[in-house]
Amino acid sequence: MSEQKTDGTGYNQISESDVQELITLLGEKYVLFRDREELEPYSHDEIPGTDYRAMPDVVVRPGTAEEISAIVKLANRRRIPITPRGAGSGLSGGAVPVCGGIVLGTDRLNRILDFDPANMMITVEPGVITNEINDYVKASGLFYAGYPMSLETCFIGGNVAENAGGGKAVKYGVTSRYVLGLEVVTPTGELVTLGGKLVKDVTGYNMVPLFVGSEGTLGIFTKIILKLVPRPRFQVDLLCLFPTGEAAIAAVAKLPTISGVQPTSIEYIDRLAFNEACRYLNESLTCGDCGAMLLVTLDGFDRDRLTEDYDAAGAFCQAAGATEVYVADSAATSERLWRLRRAIPEAFSLRYPTQSGEDVVVPPASIPRVIREFSAIAERYGICIPCYGHAGDGNVHARICAGPEWDHATWKQQLPVILRELYAVVRDCGGRISGEHGIGHKRIHYMSCVVSEEYLDLLRTIKQALDPNGIMNPGKVIPPRNGDAR
Amino acid sequence: MSEQKTDGTGYNQISESDVQELITLLGEKYVLFRDREELEPYSHDEIPGTDYRAMPDVVVRPGTAEEISAIVKLANRRRIPITPRGAGSGLSGGAVPVCGGIVLGTDRLNRILDFDPANMMITVEPGVITNEINDYVKASGLFYAGYPMSLETCFIGGNVAENAGGGKAVKYGVTSRYVLGLEVVTPTGELVTLGGKLVKDVTGYNMVPLFVGSEGTLGIFTKIILKLVPRPRFQVDLLCLFPTGEAAIAAVAKLPTISGVQPTSIEYIDRLAFNEACRYLNESLTCGDCGAMLLVTLDGFDRDRLTEDYDAAGAFCQAAGATEVYVADSAATSERLWRLRRAIPEAFSLRYPTQSGEDVVVPPASIPRVIREFSAIAERYGICIPCYGHAGDGNVHARICAGPEWDHATWKQQLPVILRELYAVVRDCGGRISGEHGIGHKRIHYMSCVVSEEYLDLLRTIKQALDPNGIMNPGKVIPPRNGDAR
Repeated sequence: MSEQKTDGTGYNQISESDVQELITLLGEKYVLFRDREELEPYSHDEIPGTDYRAMPDVVVRPGTAEEISAIVKLANRRRIPITPRGAGSGLSGGAVPVCGGIVLGTDRLNRILDFDPANMMITVEPGVITNEINDYVKASGLFYAGYPMSLETCFIGGNVAENAGGGKAVKYGVTSRYVLGLEVVTPTGELVTLGGKLVKDVTGYNMVPLFVGSEGTLGIFTKIILKLVPRPRFQVDLLCLFPTGEAAIAAVAKLPTISGVQPTSIEYIDRLAFNEACRYLNESLTCGDCGAMLLVTLDGFDRDRLTEDYDAAGAFCQAAGATEVYVADSAATSERLWRLRRAIPEAFSLRYPTQSGEDVVVPPASIPRVIREFSAIAERYGICIPCYGHAGDGNVHARICAGPEWDHATWKQQLPVILRELYAVVRDCGGRISGEHGIGHKRIHYMSCVVSEEYLDLLRTIKQALDPNGIMNPGKVIPPRNGDAR
Repeated sequence: MSEQKTDGTGYNQISESDVQELITLLGEKYVLFRDREELEPYSHDEIPGTDYRAMPDVVVRPGTAEEISAIVKLANRRRIPITPRGAGSGLSGGAVPVCGGIVLGTDRLNRILDFDPANMMITVEPGVITNEINDYVKASGLFYAGYPMSLETCFIGGNVAENAGGGKAVKYGVTSRYVLGLEVVTPTGELVTLGGKLVKDVTGYNMVPLFVGSEGTLGIFTKIILKLVPRPRFQVDLLCLFPTGEAAIAAVAKLPTISGVQPTSIEYIDRLAFNEACRYLNESLTCGDCGAMLLVTLDGFDRDRLTEDYDAAGAFCQAAGATEVYVADSAATSERLWRLRRAIPEAFSLRYPTQSGEDVVVPPASIPRVIREFSAIAERYGICIPCYGHAGDGNVHARICAGPEWDHATWKQQLPVILRELYAVVRDCGGRISGEHGIGHKRIHYMSCVVSEEYLDLLRTIKQALDPNGIMNPGKVIPPRNGDAR
């Protein structure tokens, strides 16, 4: 067995005998290593471009928790980096093996294990596609309230690893609110059960939320218990057109407090984002001369109540300056609007191959300031930074698009400068650099723009304690101190 | 400076020079150590009886985060146990200095620092009485949704340390849902900010929930950012009388799913608990020949909708076997019922001086089984175990009352045997031994009845990493392994 170390990282290169051990564990079919073409899909997630890619040495596709435990024990014993991967639909490089080594795909753990309507809970494996959960429980009148924009392709395990937010977080909160229990393989290969079918529990530390959002750096989920909620029978979407982005944004934080209505979503879409998505989908909707719009979704169990609510929300938006309020009160028109909303990232990726998708989050009342200052920065650099996203919870997706004349070298040199300016605005508002996409390796070196060294030290302490050899998804979330590569 | 160790614990006894250092830090007025009578109130919380008491060597009452940091640094350097304390209203001995040393009272950090209605958030110090928060924000139409039964006396810092549940958790969730940010002094004395005025954030690990519910074993809060929600304008309580406890309990899990109404609370009160509380409060209400009752609370923003909702909930309860449904739709009658509910623990404590208050939590649908099996155990031992509590979220408070003929020695010998039987029932349902009161030192040796050694090892790893000298509230939450006293 080779004990040769890779340069400076302290990790071992995977050896022929390691590969043999993996094959013995899983069978040849589920260990990929020979064919670069076969490995390539595991070298990236859905960040556009090629800047955040890295090739794995081996890809394994285990089928059970016990196999995962054995693989992690091997990696830990041999000090080989191991990077867990869901559907690869992430946007921060979280599933990219930046230190090489093993990528562990969870696609074969794709069973719904137990649906328990009496407790309104469901137990699933991490490789289940998020939308499948809702298909599965639909007839029961329940639903899983997580609603990431990629729900048709993403895995629930990835949602939990990233603490995904999504379109319904204003009313329902983010993923962590719904994760009641986890079975986890820790970085030393132990299989541990955390939480359970319990809506409250103080028996020991609150460990489930620590693992939720840890981006695969603290362990690999093998079982997830989710809370379900009664599915509202009716949904209405209002598309509210505002003359300017400022007017739309100013209405966001006030809508729930002044109208007295609790929206499910308040999505902000600026003119540019709307038009890109329409073009991409060949959608005939037009936004006239409006500057930006709010997509306000309301849901409920009673049609009359919902009508009263959307009347109140619509009236509020008009009082706040909306020139038009379109109502989508059928499933088909609602889906038409949301399809548009979900298509924005892909539309932009096609249109602006050189770009960076940001995911800042600020106190909701600071959103107008953030949009205003981002726009000023864009102007100063002669670029465009269209904004859209889950404005109702303070989460703004800003797409930094390269200037029309910029070559790749200019982009690589300018992007960090622009990012630091944007993040300074965010920091001054008491915000953070990621609301739901995660830090991954894309944002790792910007952590100190918004959090203190003491906070980072706390993360390092936790990480070091749970993963003493630093093998579990290295190079993510926590920036190195003093040049330590882990 | 004395370096003499106490027997076997690895801690140092506090020395004269330590006390002098504390006095220099805080001033003489805020360091108590001479008078046993002055120290005595810090030797216990609100667990009835004297079994869970322990005297501190010194009590300190700092006034700032910086003072707390300096005190903790002293304790850490000198390896002196330090036990944080809020209002002392806990029920698991969490604030009791079982290893002696320093008790740190947070009563002087009692300021409301910042009320931010635009973001619907409030920033407070840990020594603020929970109810004061709601008094403070009342005029704004917002409220803090935590509702522990002791809210008129408990401190918000204690609520956060215990992850308090309380009467409104069915609809609003427990404390952790509302804690957005914390400033914490870690066990090594560092002052760290976690989270912020953010309703979502994945910038680093999800650290806030790890500290929420850690019972003062991972640090001391010096600042707490809470999310507020719009305060419902109307509240209605239904007191639903059932012929038997079984019938009442059977209705609990079904009420929200079948009636389609989301109650704020579903409290279960058995006949014995109701009568004790009435006697204690000199309350003229009677429950006739009913066996148990549900106190169902609904709230809302619209009176007509609320009326429809309580009609539906009342009709459901009658269909489920309730013989009477009383409606309390004024603030005065509502408070009358809730005062009764809140008085149960104190009423029992007076009536049965020898007793143990349990706080088990199970999947909500398992409640009928738990109540049935607890009742069978009570019968077998010839004792009574009245049950009440937040049945809507699976949390049952069971009071084990000593048999009428039992002396203290019999009680001390029988209690652990009975507890292990009760906890075995809970474990078989997938439950845990505390839903909201905490483990403290009261339940520490029963952890392994319901959780695995791997889970406990994970807690030990986290604790050891953050508190290498084991000084922060030792003897709580995590049972020792291999006789290690910490």
